[in-house]
Amino acid sequence: MKKLFAEFFGTYWLVFGGCGSAIFAAGIPELGIGFAGVALAFGLTVLTMAYAVGHISGGHFNPAVSFGLWAGGRFEAKELIPYIISQCVGAIAAAGTLYTIASGKAGFAIDNTKAGAFASNGFGDFSPNGYSLEACFITEFVLTLFFLLIILGATDKFANGKFAGVAIGLGLTLIHLISIPVTNTSVNPARSLSQALFVGGEPLSQIWLFWIAPILGAIAAGFIYKLLLQNHNEA
Amino acid sequence: MKKLFAEFFGTYWLVFGGCGSAIFAAGIPELGIGFAGVALAFGLTVLTMAYAVGHISGGHFNPAVSFGLWAGGRFEAKELIPYIISQCVGAIAAAGTLYTIASGKAGFAIDNTKAGAFASNGFGDFSPNGYSLEACFITEFVLTLFFLLIILGATDKFANGKFAGVAIGLGLTLIHLISIPVTNTSVNPARSLSQALFVGGEPLSQIWLFWIAPILGAIAAGFIYKLLLQNHNEA
Amino acid sequence: MKKLFAEFFGTYWLVFGGCGSAIFAAGIPELGIGFAGVALAFGLTVLTMAYAVGHISGGHFNPAVSFGLWAGGRFEAKELIPYIISQCVGAIAAAGTLYTIASGKAGFAIDNTKAGAFASNGFGDFSPNGYSLEACFITEFVLTLFFLLIILGATDKFANGKFAGVAIGLGLTLIHLISIPVTNTSVNPARSLSQALFVGGEPLSQIWLFWIAPILGAIAAGFIYKLLLQNHNEA
Amino acid sequence: MKKLFAEFFGTYWLVFGGCGSAIFAAGIPELGIGFAGVALAFGLTVLTMAYAVGHISGGHFNPAVSFGLWAGGRFEAKELIPYIISQCVGAIAAAGTLYTIASGKAGFAIDNTKAGAFASNGFGDFSPNGYSLEACFITEFVLTLFFLLIILGATDKFANGKFAGVAIGLGLTLIHLISIPVTNTSVNPARSLSQALFVGGEPLSQIWLFWIAPILGAIAAGFIYKLLLQNHNEA
Repeated sequence: MKKLFAEFFGTYWLVFGGCGSAIFAAGIPELGIGFAGVALAFGLTVLTMAYAVGHISGGHFNPAVSFGLWAGGRFEAKELIPYIISQCVGAIAAAGTLYTIASGKAGFAIDNTKAGAFASNGFGDFSPNGYSLEACFITEFVLTLFFLLIILGATDKFANGKFAGVAIGLGLTLIHLISIPVTNTSVNPARSLSQALFVGGEPLSQIWLFWIAPILGAIAAGFIYKLLLQNHNEA
Repeated sequence: MKKLFAEFFGTYWLVFGGCGSAIFAAGIPELGIGFAGVALAFGLTVLTMAYAVGHISGGHFNPAVSFGLWAGGRFEAKELIPYIISQCVGAIAAAGTLYTIASGKAGFAIDNTKAGAFASNGFGDFSPNGYSLEACFITEFVLTLFFLLIILGATDKFANGKFAGVAIGLGLTLIHLISIPVTNTSVNPARSLSQALFVGGEPLSQIWLFWIAPILGAIAAGFIYKLLLQNHNEA
Repeated sequence: MKKLFAEFFGTYWLVFGGCGSAIFAAGIPELGIGFAGVALAFGLTVLTMAYAVGHISGGHFNPAVSFGLWAGGRFEAKELIPYIISQCVGAIAAAGTLYTIASGKAGFAIDNTKAGAFASNGFGDFSPNGYSLEACFITEFVLTLFFLLIILGATDKFANGKFAGVAIGLGLTLIHLISIPVTNTSVNPARSLSQALFVGGEPLSQIWLFWIAPILGAIAAGFIYKLLLQNHNEA
Repeated sequence: MKKLFAEFFGTYWLVFGGCGSAIFAAGIPELGIGFAGVALAFGLTVLTMAYAVGHISGGHFNPAVSFGLWAGGRFEAKELIPYIISQCVGAIAAAGTLYTIASGKAGFAIDNTKAGAFASNGFGDFSPNGYSLEACFITEFVLTLFFLLIILGATDKFANGKFAGVAIGLGLTLIHLISIPVTNTSVNPARSLSQALFVGGEPLSQIWLFWIAPILGAIAAGFIYKLLLQNHNEA
């Protein structure tokens, strides 16, 4: 049960911090944090929670991560559903808090005809910089694949594991540095779902890509790591 | 006594570095560090002092942190008052030094009708981007709650504790990346007090929120951590 | 064989993340990540892969690094060719993926008369800020020399080696902070080759400098470290 | 002798990377790294060299640091002069390399009537943002004092010393985030000397402040740490 609370709080923080920084602080003229600041924020949500509650739940905060760790033989199938439910509930609670705070500014409204509204993900007309469905699918697939290679490698028993939280958190920063203009960056189905539910319209109908591409990328990483990279000797 | 000196120097550095970067360097045209640079500065004050004097005093530098650690069962009630006095004295000394340096530039004056003057915190008309009292209260409450969850988790005896200074410092960076446009970011009553004393006017009369919301958030985190997350077995 | 896969994936990630952030995200008006964001991205590709697969292959991801470690007596000559082939194949595969994604935006085309097109390196008219061949050669030589001093020093048996991935990754960030305006920053022949192959024209004909200067700088570092800095006692 | 080579290379890197990023990359329109990028660069020169050669020489790279460690009882007086000579020679060699590279761009010239030319330090009319001599003296004194408190604390035998390189390097980043607009940030007499020698004129005649204020601040820190913070028990 502690594990599920840890996943709830961790995913809440990922969405509150990552999407919150995008909603409140990215676009302020002159002083705003821009895409680089949002990239740093997303990564630091995971870095901080990895050291705070990673020792409780393993620190997934992302359904694709849970699937990838399962594919890599590090996580039991029977824990997939409860973890993913906790993650989605945490993400939606965070999006609700963000909506409440954002509503405290006069004139706030979500314009769901605009790419990236309320930090939502999208492709085609809803890609921040106009990338096609195919380009967005490949981007999410490749980035989640490498995110899981980082996770599987950095937590390998032969690796320098105490730094895994740094490598994984800053890995998520790197992923955002590359891809915010492409898909507004998901690699995390729970984070995409929570924002899409508040935005509705076309961004909500595009949610399928942000579940399928990251999860397939993560599962691919699990098999690649086991087959090509893992040392199967005892430590 | 060494503990109180450590809290004095640590909180001095937090205010001198965090508020100083905002006052001197944030808004320079073209080259200024912006909100992201200020966020990094605040976090690095804590990261650096956590490794420098954390071994002496525990490295709170913030009355809300002291309250949260007390609520989480990690700090004795009788130490609260001396710690908070040291923190406030350090913060005020730093604000005085900042005032002296800032006065060394021709034409310097604090305009206390402007949101965020001299790095002060505020809500409503004194929120940098015009967020309501309610939005500002929720923001400070939630952010301090998670700041304490990071602190309590990362210093848990079951955690990878040597990285706590990195996680906590960069956690404060993350908090600023999210919320400078909302409240100019407090999560620290001493930091709010020191700037408000030099600014006066309405920002000083709003100081209550920046004591109550962070301390309540911190105490809530202490109870949440003990009840929902902590492993009560022996290490 | 695992080593060569590790070098393939690591170098793929270096090019996909570093060059990808430059191509997709650097120049977006107002919100773009700029040179500092690209610098961070390049460094984080190495930091993340150092902790992910460094325990498998040593984590070179760069022919100059392999040469420098050989000159410093840390890597066997017979492994040079297979490592360099894996690195180049990984880099080219990443550039191909970047090309595919970039083509998913209407109007995409590589203009090989423009400095830095598709994240290519160059000197003279192809230096982003117009630096001469001599200036560019010295820059690449000195920066790769110091990159290798960092690598050789941070992985020395007398050093605090667990932090090597942080020091080396952030060292590459530093190198980019200095030199993107000079050569668009190489210090890595594989990264230069992959981009030049897709760009063609003059940038491709300038590729020789980005093999010779980094490799000479790296070899110089190997000898400097052995002669002037290394402690030859047993640990 | 290895110690002096380590100080030479470390200080060369500090000046080449920190001042180089300022000269080449800070002010590029739209994409430049700004003051925050320069701050990061300075910090990373120290972080990288601390892990690379800190195990050889202790990693000072700065005459004020050598004085502060002497005042704190961690460094022998007889080593002060050789260390400082190595540091100054390294700094000047780096400034010479920067001058050579910068000259490779058409139209390069140092305008020594302009504040901050060739990354030089200054006060009054030569302070980047026009701060008085007194304000600049206090700033350099306070910042160097805290830089040494970080160094003395993070390398204390009771501290979590493996992170000292991270805390000290990022501490230097923080110092630059605060004070580039005030003095262009020194806290390091060797770094000020090397740039002033190439700039000449008024910036060179102001060099006294950037030797006296940092060294006094560092010595003050040594005594403060010993008297107020240090635990004098055996580890």
